[in-house]
Order: sequence, then structure tokens, then C-alpha cells
Amino acid sequence: MIKPLGDRVVIEALAKEEVTKSGIVLPDTVKEKPQEGKVVAVGTGRTLENGQKVALDVTVGDKIIFSKYAGTEVKVEGKEYLIISERDILAVIE
Amino acid sequence: MIKPLGDRVVIEALAKEEVTKSGIVLPDTVKEKPQEGKVVAVGTGRTLENGQKVALDVTVGDKIIFSKYAGTEVKVEGKEYLIISERDILAVIE
Amino acid sequence: MIKPLGDRVVIEALAKEEVTKSGIVLPDTVKEKPQEGKVVAVGTGRTLENGQKVALDVTVGDKIIFSKYAGTEVKVEGKEYLIISERDILAVIE
Amino acid sequence: MIKPLGDRVVIEALAKEEVTKSGIVLPDTVKEKPQEGKVVAVGTGRTLENGQKVALDVTVGDKIIFSKYAGTEVKVEGKEYLIISERDILAVIE
Amino acid sequence: MIKPLGDRVVIEALAKEEVTKSGIVLPDTVKEKPQEGKVVAVGTGRTLENGQKVALDVTVGDKIIFSKYAGTEVKVEGKEYLIISERDILAVIE
Amino acid sequence: MIKPLGDRVVIEALAKEEVTKSGIVLPDTVKEKPQEGKVVAVGTGRTLENGQKVALDVTVGDKIIFSKYAGTEVKVEGKEYLIISERDILAVIE
Amino acid sequence: MIKPLGDRVVIEALAKEEVTKSGIVLPDTVKEKPQEGKVVAVGTGRTLENGQKVALDVTVGDKIIFSKYAGTEVKVEGKEYLIISERDILAVIE
Repeated sequence: MIKPLGDRVVIEALAKEEVTKSGIVLPDTVKEKPQEGKVVAVGTGRTLENGQKVALDVTVGDKIIFSKYAGTEVKVEGKEYLIISERDILAVIE
Repeated sequence: MIKPLGDRVVIEALAKEEVTKSGIVLPDTVKEKPQEGKVVAVGTGRTLENGQKVALDVTVGDKIIFSKYAGTEVKVEGKEYLIISERDILAVIE
Repeated sequence: MIKPLGDRVVIEALAKEEVTKSGIVLPDTVKEKPQEGKVVAVGTGRTLENGQKVALDVTVGDKIIFSKYAGTEVKVEGKEYLIISERDILAVIE
Repeated sequence: MIKPLGDRVVIEALAKEEVTKSGIVLPDTVKEKPQEGKVVAVGTGRTLENGQKVALDVTVGDKIIFSKYAGTEVKVEGKEYLIISERDILAVIE
Repeated sequence: MIKPLGDRVVIEALAKEEVTKSGIVLPDTVKEKPQEGKVVAVGTGRTLENGQKVALDVTVGDKIIFSKYAGTEVKVEGKEYLIISERDILAVIE
Repeated sequence: MIKPLGDRVVIEALAKEEVTKSGIVLPDTVKEKPQEGKVVAVGTGRTLENGQKVALDVTVGDKIIFSKYAGTEVKVEGKEYLIISERDILAVIE
Repeated sequence: MIKPLGDRVVIEALAKEEVTKSGIVLPDTVKEKPQEGKVVAVGTGRTLENGQKVALDVTVGDKIIFSKYAGTEVKVEGKEYLIISERDILAVIE
């Protein structure tokens, strides 16, 4: 199990089948990086300069939109994840 | 539904029919990026370093002017939105 | 009406007839950007890190000097304005 | 009258007749920018993050040394001034 | 023994045998830098601007994922370690 | 008299006769900038964000070592000085 | 005697005889900068934004590892030292 530190969140990217306007399915290499993901683990929060800890605004299971290119890709037990800071999460989709 | 995080705001860009001085309607690709939009969702606010949460100064329905090129374009349920930080909102038009 | 956010100010640039040393009136494109303007609207102020709101030092009607190239040009109801941060205002002319 | 904002100061540059080692008086264009000036107006001070206002350490009439190239040149009623931040003032000459 | 200062952590990189898709074991020089390590020593924590000391979120023995290229490689008593800041630790693997 | 502002210090550079390994005295132009000086005036201190004033750690007469290239050279009453910030002073030599 | 200011530390670099894998002793010019040193003097500490002074975590005599290229080389009474900030000290070796 991956336990992210501080204000970090572990994300599983959501696959999208991408079809161009002319109807051709693109191979992986020309696809854009995904912008949507599902939160699989959250850190304990960010520590403010007065010592107070602020819990994250997302929870496990949330479907989120995050900044393209944000975060670091990691592979744990053969599965790929993205670890990003909460500040790179733009919104939750409900 | 998109629920933006922190000091972020979801915006629907307002279309303008753009006509050049010589009267020719320009196709999409040469148009300038819009600078006006309508707020469709707002985050819960910005957290100060003393832990206090500051609510945003805009509310859903506000017509706003925002910095060109600010924010991230997202597509949710086939519709395009822009997610921007409140600091990139210059003014509200009343 | 434009209502600027936070520490922003809406300015109407003051026109100057510019004459070069040799006496030729320059067309618009080679003129320098104006450095003087009149405040037409002010934001509610800047929020400090302790949550306190600081009112702006300029008020509507003030004639000001501001940093060249500062701010964003906007066009509202056919009229051109400049939206700048208070920190780009150098002085008030009385 | 120019009333500078915040921690800004209005300065009148002090002219120096510059003579090179070989005794030739240089024309204006090759002279170095002046580093000395006289304070003609001071702002109300800098606002700290706790909301406290700190008065400036210089007063009208002070002869000062300031960083080369600092500030913005302005022309008010035909006279040239420099508006600089107090942090660009290095010292007062008594 | 190495005793890291402040928010720093000493890490022993975990070796992985890297095999390309075509099954060829790569020599050291073309391998990627490791992203996993084991914590062998931790600092006393980060000092906040209010003087409070915040203990680290990792402890000796933790298996961690850290940002590629972060930290400084050191060699102590013939053994190689990496000294990194806690902010470059992304997650703990349990 | 020069009275430096805030955390600034006025320094008189200490001359060193520089001799290369081969014994040739170098002319001024190829010498390194001096790194040692004597404090001739100190500012009233640095203002912290809580409004508190912190007195400088050096006093008039101290022989100091400072960062190469730090500060601004000024000439007052025909004499050359260097005005530097206290943070560019590395150490006092006793 | 050198008395460093604030959070600075004076270090005496520890010499290492460097031998390449093929057994050739390298001349000085191609050696790496040393990463180990012995603390010979420490400053009085860092001043936080609330005015509190934080003592350094190293003391005279400590053998330390520091960031390559950090600090400023000085020569006092014919001996070479390095003056670095405490934040560039990675660890103490015990």
C-alpha cells in the first residue's frame, strides 16, 4: 500500500478511449496525458507556518481533474500511479 | 457537476462574434482567447497561513473579466470549461 | 459597471497630445504608453495573511501615475480601461 | 503635487558636473545615471503582514544615495522626478 | 554514523534488476536513477517561523518513494547514501 | 557623514598588496575585488514582519569579511565606500 | 579569529587522497571539491520572523558533510576556510 506524505495524493489515471474527429483511434504515444483520475490514497495534510495541520479537501474514491503534467509517475506492485500535490488538483467531479 | 478546490473557480467562456475592421468574420483559429466568462462554480476559499479560510469574492452567475491565458481548459460531459484561480479574475461586470 | 477584485483598480488612461522635438504630431502607434490615468473604480482591498483586509490608498476620481506596461487592457461597453494592481500605482497627483 | 503611495519616495536627482580624468566635460548622453538625490515627497509607509504600518526612515529634504537604475522616471508639470521604493535608498548623507 | 540535519533524511537506495521489454539486462550506466529507498537516519525536524519544531513523518526503516534526481549522493565508510529533504519524499510503501 | 538605512552597513575596503606566485605585483585592474573591510557606519536594523526591529550584529570599527561583488560602490567627499546589506557580511575578524 | 554571523559556520575542509579506479593519484586541478569538513566556528543563530533566535544544530569540532559548491572560500592568516550557511550542511558524521 502507498501512503502519501503531507499534502500529497495518490491517483489512478482514468483511461479514456480517444477518437479523433475523423474517427481513427489513436495509439498511446500520440494521446494527450490524462487529466482525470481517481484518488486512491491521501496524505495527512499540509502543515501551516503556525504548526496547524490542514486536512486535504479530497478523499479516497473522489473522481478528480488535475493539471496536465503535474506529479510524478510511480509503479508499485506492477501498477502505475501518479503522486501529486493537492494544489495540482483543480476540481472534483460529482 | 464540477466542484472546484480551494480558491478555484469554474468558468464558462462567453462567446463574442468577432468582426475585423474590414468586416470579415474571423474563423475560430485566429480569434483571441476570450477574456469574459460566467462563473458556474466556486471553491470553498483560500486557506491563510493562520489556518483561517477566506471565502471567494465572486459567486455563481457573476459575469467576470479574467486574465488572458490564465487557467486550464477542461471538458466535462462534452462541455468546455475553464478552471482558474480567483487571483486571475480581474473584475466583475454588473 | 466594472467592479475590480481585491487590490485592483480600474483606470481610464489620460490622453496626451504628443509632439516630438521637431514639432511633428506622432500617430498613435509610435506613442509611448500613457503613464497617467484617472481611477474609475477600486477593489475592496488586499487580504493580509492574518485575515485582515487593508483598504486601498486611492479613491475614485484620483489622478494617478502608474508603472508603464503594468496591468491588463479591457474593453467594456465600447470603452477602453486598464485594470492594474494597487502596487503598480506609484503616486497620486493633487 | 505628487503624493507617492506606500513605501515610495519622490526624488529630485542632484546634478553633478562630470569631468573625466583627461579633463573633458562629458555631454549628457554618456554620463552615468545619478546616484544622489533630494527627497521631495514620501509615502505613508509600508504595511506589514500583521496590518501594522511602518513609517519611512527618510523625510522631505533628506539628501540620499540610491541604487543606480532603481525607480521610474516621471515628468510632472514639466519637471523630472524619480519615484523609488524606500528599499532602493542606500543611505542618507548628512 | 550519519546524523542528518533539520528536515533531512539519509536513504539507502533499493537496487532493482532492470530488464527491458526485449529481455536484455541493462548495464548500470543506462539505468534510470532509483526512485525507491530505505530510510537509515532522520533529522530532528523542520523549524517553523514561529520557532516550533515539526518532527518528520518518516522513521528509520521506512521504505519510501522519492522524487527522481532529488538529494545529494554521499559516500560514508565506503557505502553510498542519498541525503534528501523530507519534501522530496512522495510516499511510504507499507 | 553617510547614515545607511535599515540593515545596511557602510564599509571601507581594506587594501592588500597582491603578489602573484611568480612575485610580480599586479596593477589594480587585474586584482580581485577586496573581501575584507572595516565598518564605518551601520543602519538602525532590519524590521521583521511583526514590526520588531532587529539591531545589526556588527558595529563601527569591526573588521569584516563580506561576499565578493556584494553591495554598491559610492563616492562621498572624494572617498570610496561600499554599502552592503548585513546578510552579505560573512564574518567578523577579531 | 573568525566569528561568523547569523546562521553561518566556518569550516576547515578535510583533505582526502583521491585515487581513481585505475590507481592513478589525480593532481589537484581535476579533483572534486571536498564534501567533508570540520566546524571551526559557528554563528549566533538564525533570527525567525517573530524575533526569536534559533541556535545552530552544529558545534565546533563536528565533522560534517556539506553541499558541493556551497559557501565562500576565505583566507585568514594564510589558512583557507569555507564560510557556509547552516542550511548547506547536510549531516554530521559521528
